[in-house]
Amino acid sequence: MLEDKNQQRTALENLGEFGLIKHLTKDFNLKHNSSLVGIGDDAAVLDLNGKKTVITTDMLVEGVHFDLSYMPLKHLGYKSVIVNLSDVYAMNALATQITVSIAVSNRFPLEALEEFYAGVAMACRLYNVDLVGGDTTSSTRGMLISVTAVGVAEEAELVYRSGAKPNDLLVVSGDLGGAYLGLQVLEREKEVFKVNPNNQPDLEPYSYIVERQLKPEARKDIIDLLEKLEVKPTAMIDISDGLSSEILHLCEQSNVGCNLFEDKIPLDPTVMSASEEFKMDSTTIALSGGEDYELLFTIDQNDFEKIKGNPNLTVIGHMTSSNEGAHLITRGDTKVPISAQGWNSFSE
Amino acid sequence: MLEDKNQQRTALENLGEFGLIKHLTKDFNLKHNSSLVGIGDDAAVLDLNGKKTVITTDMLVEGVHFDLSYMPLKHLGYKSVIVNLSDVYAMNALATQITVSIAVSNRFPLEALEEFYAGVAMACRLYNVDLVGGDTTSSTRGMLISVTAVGVAEEAELVYRSGAKPNDLLVVSGDLGGAYLGLQVLEREKEVFKVNPNNQPDLEPYSYIVERQLKPEARKDIIDLLEKLEVKPTAMIDISDGLSSEILHLCEQSNVGCNLFEDKIPLDPTVMSASEEFKMDSTTIALSGGEDYELLFTIDQNDFEKIKGNPNLTVIGHMTSSNEGAHLITRGDTKVPISAQGWNSFSE
Repeated sequence: MLEDKNQQRTALENLGEFGLIKHLTKDFNLKHNSSLVGIGDDAAVLDLNGKKTVITTDMLVEGVHFDLSYMPLKHLGYKSVIVNLSDVYAMNALATQITVSIAVSNRFPLEALEEFYAGVAMACRLYNVDLVGGDTTSSTRGMLISVTAVGVAEEAELVYRSGAKPNDLLVVSGDLGGAYLGLQVLEREKEVFKVNPNNQPDLEPYSYIVERQLKPEARKDIIDLLEKLEVKPTAMIDISDGLSSEILHLCEQSNVGCNLFEDKIPLDPTVMSASEEFKMDSTTIALSGGEDYELLFTIDQNDFEKIKGNPNLTVIGHMTSSNEGAHLITRGDTKVPISAQGWNSFSE
Repeated sequence: MLEDKNQQRTALENLGEFGLIKHLTKDFNLKHNSSLVGIGDDAAVLDLNGKKTVITTDMLVEGVHFDLSYMPLKHLGYKSVIVNLSDVYAMNALATQITVSIAVSNRFPLEALEEFYAGVAMACRLYNVDLVGGDTTSSTRGMLISVTAVGVAEEAELVYRSGAKPNDLLVVSGDLGGAYLGLQVLEREKEVFKVNPNNQPDLEPYSYIVERQLKPEARKDIIDLLEKLEVKPTAMIDISDGLSSEILHLCEQSNVGCNLFEDKIPLDPTVMSASEEFKMDSTTIALSGGEDYELLFTIDQNDFEKIKGNPNLTVIGHMTSSNEGAHLITRGDTKVPISAQGWNSFSE
């Protein structure tokens, strides 16, 4: 008998919209007491009694935000959740619930969506959030994802972009530039593969930066760490569009200026070697690369002792008065105005 | 001098993503005390203290859910909000906040998005909800919209799909089938226009059903009415996919059966005449048409006197025990099982 190569491909129209939602979400259990009712009614019901609620949403479009030729669907499901949780943590809040909506064309079999939801489920489990709703529909072309995340915090715990003051220290978690360089590696391997499909890419030397691109993490651990260290940032934002862009947001919304020191920007050795390989400036990549999902925040100078020497945190500059503007102090000690070179999805 | 026909077309790349969000949302003011922080930080902050929160989300895709050749963008913005508010009201909750995310290709100028947001603003004003967040990004083709709506209710006020009991009366607001027939009219006029672009469509005789399609309303007024009448439905759902499909949801989730009487289904005269014109059965249209956004609910028989004679409400059947199944009792007094013929976006 001939092997049926399509036996693992279940067409979506066989399930219908409700059957599909039911199938994809049947293994999602509600863990938070605040998740009263999840999927299955006109809306989910949450009991966020006594705390402030934060809500954030992000849309991911195939061909703009991700390329399925090298982005495994499970990773995509994971990353779609992560980018939203990152926004919740950037408010110094605890993420509790998400809704996930997807639109896909008929070319996606059920098994592809199961992979995607397996990634969503993994993120829900690791970050302890409940999937409580969503929408599943068809698209004329490609895959579209929209995630909304809900979190809670006491009012006094919330950290906005607007609270930075002159002389506050500027701190970043982890290291920068990896996600952007990981993307460059993947794009290059895709081109190589197009020329010769028998070519087996060796991604091993790039595993750290490729993982930064394909499977980023949201820094819940940093929120927990800051609480343990008894440090409450004066302002905070997550780095989705690149360090420059986020610094300018903090400066504008806090009405302050900033001095950023080039030699303090944390870079992984893989980022430095890959920058050289791609003949790109590693500082430019850290400033403009984006998608690192690290936390960028300001703290009062009096809190410096509490974070000093922590391997997860790097002081990269300090805030100034707004009329001083935002500048990068280069290794050569020149002062260059910081401009937003972050990702603008409407250009090109 | 030559006239610059493009003077009203501002390219999106001139604004950038943040400039665009700022521009589009600058006239949105927060009116609810529960909207602590709106657009402009990593997340919005809501104070939903002491009440239960409901959250729902819907995605609309160009070419699947709407056709911009006859859907004005302002109406589309309005409708995108309405379909979500309708889900909140179907929980017997008060809608308070929304987030709106859109992805558009470069062919959309700024002015098109302004039109869209004017429709969003109108819905926010009329339904008293605050726009508190969203995402604006690019697509490779077409327009994608994702809206999330948040609402509040006391726990005792919430109405689920699962509370219907045998002998409860089945009630629907307004009338059915108009939105589907309005779509048929618009599709027909589009074909006529393709053949002869000079042809001016006369939509006047169809204004009611065309408006039902292009500018539906969410039945907040029915929620208010029921409160005034002191009637709390035992179960409720909004009609987005057609009467059959929604009845089956209520039956399944409440574990009951249903007898629906064909001669009781409320139809506007325009729906009846247009059905004849299109040689379609008006009952089939009401059962399967969808997009009417009326409320379908069940009430205890003891509440019948309170709603009797109200022009906004029609008793169309009653619930039975689950082993009796869900049936349509036709005008000819035959009993036909109800099957979900609602819109399945994955078929075809």
